[in-house]
Amino acid sequence: MDVIGVDLGGTKVLAATVDGATVGDRRKRPTPVDGPTAVVAAIAGMVRELGGADRLGIGTPGYVDDEGVVRGAPNLAGWDEPVPLAALVAEATGIAAVAVDNDVNVATMGEVAHGAAAGRPDVLTVFMGTGVGGGLVLGGELRRGPRGLVGEIGHVVVERDGRRCACGGRGHMEAYAGRAAMEAEARRRHAAGEATALVDRAGDRRMKSGTFAKALADRDPVAAEILAEAVDAVGCVVASAVMLVDVPFVVLGGGVVEKLPRLVGDVAAAAAARLDDGLAPEVVAAALGDDAGIVGAAALAASLP
Amino acid sequence: MDVIGVDLGGTKVLAATVDGATVGDRRKRPTPVDGPTAVVAAIAGMVRELGGADRLGIGTPGYVDDEGVVRGAPNLAGWDEPVPLAALVAEATGIAAVAVDNDVNVATMGEVAHGAAAGRPDVLTVFMGTGVGGGLVLGGELRRGPRGLVGEIGHVVVERDGRRCACGGRGHMEAYAGRAAMEAEARRRHAAGEATALVDRAGDRRMKSGTFAKALADRDPVAAEILAEAVDAVGCVVASAVMLVDVPFVVLGGGVVEKLPRLVGDVAAAAAARLDDGLAPEVVAAALGDDAGIVGAAALAASLP
Repeated sequence: MDVIGVDLGGTKVLAATVDGATVGDRRKRPTPVDGPTAVVAAIAGMVRELGGADRLGIGTPGYVDDEGVVRGAPNLAGWDEPVPLAALVAEATGIAAVAVDNDVNVATMGEVAHGAAAGRPDVLTVFMGTGVGGGLVLGGELRRGPRGLVGEIGHVVVERDGRRCACGGRGHMEAYAGRAAMEAEARRRHAAGEATALVDRAGDRRMKSGTFAKALADRDPVAAEILAEAVDAVGCVVASAVMLVDVPFVVLGGGVVEKLPRLVGDVAAAAAARLDDGLAPEVVAAALGDDAGIVGAAALAASLP
Repeated sequence: MDVIGVDLGGTKVLAATVDGATVGDRRKRPTPVDGPTAVVAAIAGMVRELGGADRLGIGTPGYVDDEGVVRGAPNLAGWDEPVPLAALVAEATGIAAVAVDNDVNVATMGEVAHGAAAGRPDVLTVFMGTGVGGGLVLGGELRRGPRGLVGEIGHVVVERDGRRCACGGRGHMEAYAGRAAMEAEARRRHAAGEATALVDRAGDRRMKSGTFAKALADRDPVAAEILAEAVDAVGCVVASAVMLVDVPFVVLGGGVVEKLPRLVGDVAAAAAARLDDGLAPEVVAAALGDDAGIVGAAALAASLP
């Protein structure tokens, strides 16, 4: 069975032939900014170049319902209305078996099928990037939820009257632990007169995960404080998830963690400090890195009935 | 099939014959304080008085594992070591089919099988009593978790550096919304010089749920503030649970809610205020009241293979 995995992101589309955890031929294109039709055409073109497949899996931003309809993908230009992505791609490629899920669920599928959580029945994943997303596998099954909301762990509350989140909510974990929120906090402190290597290094450009890693290596106190607060926020939500759904195993990934692997141990310690002895979950680094999206999308397609 | 449900509490043991949601003959005894053997004998005596049964379900405080072994039940005197309650009761009664689960899971089973959440596949229950417990039904299945931790929703964080919880943790929901924590806060404010009808009414006695209801009816400002903080804490955790596991339906129960039914609407509003439009869960009052334990325990027993 030939399977292609597609990782549809806000800036680029990755596609590859995948066999289990092994990635074969790859293709990469910038994400078309003129709406769903152009994106579907780009995916179909890459699939053709890869020689086609029996099954196709796609990870995408936004909420995805059981029929593969994408609703609300703010990172994709022109996707304001619901897009029946699975049906459109099936039509454009001639592949009948097309599976679509949100990017976080797909990355979770990848880690559970072929990565750091292989063989674990109860798993929480947390991916720290521009925002923070996460997935849940309970009793061996990916939890999708009746409204496709699972993945929104970044919007779990850690401080009920705390910092304003980009979504408008108060005190959400992402408001402390997302890269964009950490950058905003660094710039706020810099504007208030605190010197920090973060702004010295980034200037007016986007403050990348690597910038945080370098500033921390420079012993920049602002970077250290911002990251400590991020670690505590993630640890707090991990502890809350343990008490709410009893997950003993956590996979931590995403761009921020790739540049700062020490966060894995730090988050484990922060969660353990908030839990009774014996209840602390095992926290490990995600294993699939940049390939999580395509490997997970292929695993999703392979799991189709 | 004759089924008996048993509700084993810290102060009393209730047992009854149960047919679906209909409770027949009832028995009640004070909970023996001299350890598990006496409790098992009390249950066996009540079962004899009720004429025996084909199946028996028991709800108990503490963590309960898949084999019906009770671990850590601080409300039961002399239960410091693990107690194989299902096996002991089966031996004492001659009933082979004995199911044991913690009291919160059992009450959740009752509400889902025969109460306010009948027919709902994805449900969160929150029971506000001395502490705050809760259960989760996901995809039609009661979530028990590999370590039997589900139910511990009271220890989800709402304020990461907040009030100290009875368990030792920081800023847990129960530290704001449990009756015992609310009483402690009322007495702290009274000791600090604030007049409150709560202490006037309760004196040195335990501050019951009804005392909070009466003080609120008296427009006591301290009672109003303490309850507003409790409502916000529960609403906050409900919103977090929506983002973490996507539950669209919440059952709110327990002694505090029975005396203050307006909390149902208040918690619904507090959760909705923290969620995007369209994501607010439906929040309803528990329907089984004091019978939730015995009806749920019987439902648990009836669900045995």
